[in-house]
Amino acid sequence: MFECPECGKTYSRFRYFCRCGSVLLWKGKTLWNPEGEGVWRYSGMLPPVKERISMGEGWTPLVKNRDFVRKYPEMYYKFEGDNPTGSFKDRGTALVISHALGEGYGKVGVASTGNMGASVAAYSAYANISAEVFVPEDTPPQKITQIIAYGARVRKVKGTFSECFSKLWENRRKYYIAMTGVNPYYLEGEKTVAFEIFEEIGVPDTVVVPVGTGGLFTAVWKGFKELKQAGASKKLPVMVGVQAEGFSPIVRAWEEGLDRFPMPDPGRHTIASSIAVKEPFNGWTAIDAVNESKGFFCSVTDNQILRAMKKLAAEGIFAEPASAATLAAVEKEIGRTDERIVLLVTGHGLKQPAAYARINH
Amino acid sequence: MFECPECGKTYSRFRYFCRCGSVLLWKGKTLWNPEGEGVWRYSGMLPPVKERISMGEGWTPLVKNRDFVRKYPEMYYKFEGDNPTGSFKDRGTALVISHALGEGYGKVGVASTGNMGASVAAYSAYANISAEVFVPEDTPPQKITQIIAYGARVRKVKGTFSECFSKLWENRRKYYIAMTGVNPYYLEGEKTVAFEIFEEIGVPDTVVVPVGTGGLFTAVWKGFKELKQAGASKKLPVMVGVQAEGFSPIVRAWEEGLDRFPMPDPGRHTIASSIAVKEPFNGWTAIDAVNESKGFFCSVTDNQILRAMKKLAAEGIFAEPASAATLAAVEKEIGRTDERIVLLVTGHGLKQPAAYARINH
Repeated sequence: MFECPECGKTYSRFRYFCRCGSVLLWKGKTLWNPEGEGVWRYSGMLPPVKERISMGEGWTPLVKNRDFVRKYPEMYYKFEGDNPTGSFKDRGTALVISHALGEGYGKVGVASTGNMGASVAAYSAYANISAEVFVPEDTPPQKITQIIAYGARVRKVKGTFSECFSKLWENRRKYYIAMTGVNPYYLEGEKTVAFEIFEEIGVPDTVVVPVGTGGLFTAVWKGFKELKQAGASKKLPVMVGVQAEGFSPIVRAWEEGLDRFPMPDPGRHTIASSIAVKEPFNGWTAIDAVNESKGFFCSVTDNQILRAMKKLAAEGIFAEPASAATLAAVEKEIGRTDERIVLLVTGHGLKQPAAYARINH
Repeated sequence: MFECPECGKTYSRFRYFCRCGSVLLWKGKTLWNPEGEGVWRYSGMLPPVKERISMGEGWTPLVKNRDFVRKYPEMYYKFEGDNPTGSFKDRGTALVISHALGEGYGKVGVASTGNMGASVAAYSAYANISAEVFVPEDTPPQKITQIIAYGARVRKVKGTFSECFSKLWENRRKYYIAMTGVNPYYLEGEKTVAFEIFEEIGVPDTVVVPVGTGGLFTAVWKGFKELKQAGASKKLPVMVGVQAEGFSPIVRAWEEGLDRFPMPDPGRHTIASSIAVKEPFNGWTAIDAVNESKGFFCSVTDNQILRAMKKLAAEGIFAEPASAATLAAVEKEIGRTDERIVLLVTGHGLKQPAAYARINH
């Protein structure tokens, strides 16, 4: 069943949005019986699909912060760069492309800042489905190369993720739309990162997540809540979401109690390209998650992100800029703590190596 | 105990080479009791060390060839790109840097075509050991960026891997030398890829490996042999090694029965930069492995590699060129078969994306 988190309406059949315009979330029976590999390890917690494909997504390293005697004795990096296409998106894509394959779709479309596009391109290739990917024209070249390599068609769009989505949506009759926000299967795959963290160290005190559309943030919270509902865990983490200054509509709506997301000034730019999202599909569900978990949102500057990239890499974690925003946020907002903190490192540094050229060594 | 595969001499204490000039291999008690994560899952099969560090290396996807009804119904890709630094090297590095840390070394040195350098830089950073990396000046820029990001010092050398090693060896008193061929702990980590394949699908009929120094090839064979010695398995795979045309000293020595490795013509170049090695440290042990396993070596051209890169990516596997050499070899030398074949995809395509610009889509 698919439920609207805004108006509460439910749908038994798959669709992209609620009639009220909101995203939809899957709701169904859950059973905690992890077994096997990839996202299907958690099939008891996932919506049923007719076909299951996996390219070995998930079971990524949970690396303990090296400086264990210092400011953060219990801090971990969940390194999602170790997924097949180099980002956490592969978890969601495994679900979405499995669903598309089971339903007999031959063509998928997606708008992306690059990572989701590469992921959908790879899994579509594996499933023998053709893919079309709309990306902003200033997407890092490695990401575009990767998407093209998998055989997908790339459509470069002047503008941001939002303009890419508009182009895709104009053409929606042509495709199965395989993207987060629009397709509720996406978050179902992404929530498996919460299950893995739980299997490895139990429920952390705090989870820090980079926020673009708010999809991953919503999914992680949904995952921890469902673990509790299924009787597997007893507590819930505090959720902390991080946006890039200049692209922080969720932070601003949450702080200022707005009822719509404010537009950034035109021409704004951030090095954290994979979270540079103006109109966040899952913004309201992300705000719900922060409020329910008694967490917070904050934004960080490009300079803070660059310093955090350097620190992370000096501990052996080579992350794309959006991922390093989590460490920048911890240092800015959390300070010394004995709590058990997990930072989601969402993408590999090899996705955007040029960003490292801006660091002074 | 460390044993010379050439003259048979043994050493109880760690050292880089045998007095006869050959590499050394570790030999010791083995116990098959896999448990836990990273390379230490197989600690019963590994040499003892005083410290154990892991960044979550290993347990990489074994992805079944999509075209299962066609030419190769039982072909798998072992995708080593899903290691912390994007290549299989992390397995060996986990052992080597653990050993260095346990013995109290503060500085490591390595010569590398890029992947080993990035891996040693990352694990050294994690272990708080300083690292110096000698690379050929034409190493792909992503790899150099990555090494620098981890905080290691990069020394660019005019020439190939062999000239890099000469420079490192001149300075050997300054470092713990953390590289394959020289340091026997390296192969001990790398052999864990055989253990994982065995846990997932048993012993395959054939394993196909890209060959530069011959280290990984030697390690995979050692791993399967030790599984049999430990009583865990009953059979051994046929080993197939692939080099790039123009950099194929092992192929030529094996085919022509030479007693030394022939030098490539000066100025030769291959797109498969990570296996562009003139003087293969583990060449003789690799030749022993092919002969013992009744396998073979072959070489493939850059054009064959480029075609294989395109085919692999069209199945969702984005590999660096050296890795795609394995598929090129299967298509050239093996043809249609029902055998269970595993191809080692040693590095992520994001390590060398420029190579994909040379493919016609």
